[in-house]
Amino acid sequence: MTKKVVLVVEYDGSAYKGWQSQKFGVPSVQEKIETALSVIANHDVKVICAGRTDSGVHASAQVIHFETPVERSVRSWTLGTNTHLPPDISIVAASYVAEDFHARFSALSRRYRYVIYQSALRPAVLAKGVTWTYKELDAGAMAEAASVFLGTHDFTSFRAVGCQANTPVRTILNFSVHQFGQYIVLDVRANAFLHHMIRNFAGVLMAIGAGEKPVAWAKEVLDAKDRCKGGITAPPFGLYFVDAEYPPAFNVPKLPLGPHFLPYVEELPYVEEALSSVDKVISC
Amino acid sequence: MTKKVVLVVEYDGSAYKGWQSQKFGVPSVQEKIETALSVIANHDVKVICAGRTDSGVHASAQVIHFETPVERSVRSWTLGTNTHLPPDISIVAASYVAEDFHARFSALSRRYRYVIYQSALRPAVLAKGVTWTYKELDAGAMAEAASVFLGTHDFTSFRAVGCQANTPVRTILNFSVHQFGQYIVLDVRANAFLHHMIRNFAGVLMAIGAGEKPVAWAKEVLDAKDRCKGGITAPPFGLYFVDAEYPPAFNVPKLPLGPHFLPYVEELPYVEEALSSVDKVISC
Repeated sequence: MTKKVVLVVEYDGSAYKGWQSQKFGVPSVQEKIETALSVIANHDVKVICAGRTDSGVHASAQVIHFETPVERSVRSWTLGTNTHLPPDISIVAASYVAEDFHARFSALSRRYRYVIYQSALRPAVLAKGVTWTYKELDAGAMAEAASVFLGTHDFTSFRAVGCQANTPVRTILNFSVHQFGQYIVLDVRANAFLHHMIRNFAGVLMAIGAGEKPVAWAKEVLDAKDRCKGGITAPPFGLYFVDAEYPPAFNVPKLPLGPHFLPYVEELPYVEEALSSVDKVISC
Repeated sequence: MTKKVVLVVEYDGSAYKGWQSQKFGVPSVQEKIETALSVIANHDVKVICAGRTDSGVHASAQVIHFETPVERSVRSWTLGTNTHLPPDISIVAASYVAEDFHARFSALSRRYRYVIYQSALRPAVLAKGVTWTYKELDAGAMAEAASVFLGTHDFTSFRAVGCQANTPVRTILNFSVHQFGQYIVLDVRANAFLHHMIRNFAGVLMAIGAGEKPVAWAKEVLDAKDRCKGGITAPPFGLYFVDAEYPPAFNVPKLPLGPHFLPYVEELPYVEEALSSVDKVISC
């Protein structure tokens, strides 16, 4: 009889061509994790994740699951697996989970944080862990602009050309903009995201924050339903997958919100409460 | 006529065998910077730093100087040089400085921060940028223990065997222990440091924080004047050179205290005021 295991994974994506396994020789986070788990399990392990991240994108709490017929302690799935992983990937929590759990399909929401660092000259510490800008950004203007994304919309203008989703409609449950010293952090929760969606949000908001575009431009771009009317796709460096939310009955391990170098930000309400507080839902 | 230039440099030391140039093929921060500056200056540039850092140690604000007969704008010495540096090294400030300035000999004090990250399992983000411990540390006990290091002492017990300094006597001007969420940060300023001194402080304080040794052990180690009586040398990962202080007349550029991912901590008093507040000076 197989059992299902859920893991929470942290990774620095700088050295990887994204989450997903690709052809031989292309480094992916998935391949490193499957190889390490296969050693512990002594059989080939295939994992499913909550949200596939792009090349160079990081995670403080990616959620994955896999099935296995073998009995191992939670300690083996964490500490044991970590001994077979490179320093830039770490299993940070594990537990056995109900058979009907699925890291992707059971997820009610995903949450990302996009970390922008403002300074006259480029940083060397976290060089691939933050998105640097020499421009002074107005976080207030960015927050005001971001509020138009809240609710259910057709996000065609923020969708990469190659996006394979069936529909461009997504529901943004929360979108906040925080300033911590020289950092501006975009914190976004949605039922799901389109390809490059957050980096495209970041591109528009950074242009507005820098005063190159007015606050009203965010709504213009959204309404245009045309990727060509949007801004640039901001770099992957500052992007972190920070949470996937599941029905509480699954008891998926919860850790303090990451990435760990950012000050703690309070937990968001459970997705149903969040939905009821989204007052800008439009029909589509 | 040559002019003197002072630069502030940030680097992630993970990939380098320390600051100092070594034999051919051994990567050093100094060699990368001298090569980049030589391109901009169009002659061989040799630099002097405020404090040489060890293999794997970082800096948010290393201070260096060099002499050059050529005229270049400050913009060339910063932005220009940065285009010839790898992503993990960056010039973050520059200015012309008086002829009698010397990055090493003019420095009144050096300041380091040692960043400890507490979590059950190892981090993947900043894996080589923080020192990880799975142990719960008592920051209060560590601060109490650290207070015995304040003042002028013979620090033989905290000095690496290979240390080349003429004397083991140093003056600790400030030593504070801060807790930010899962981080504990040791913040130390001294007139100068012995080889491995801060990592040896960290080894003793982490043992005390973990409850493996009593607070009084710090004084016992100090009084023993014997490296063999000390604790382990803590890893280089969490160590950052964050400031060098000079007489204000030199107008060395000042930046917010780093590393940039830590919350801002207030400026310390100028070295003479700090000396007058060191009430634990012992004669030696």
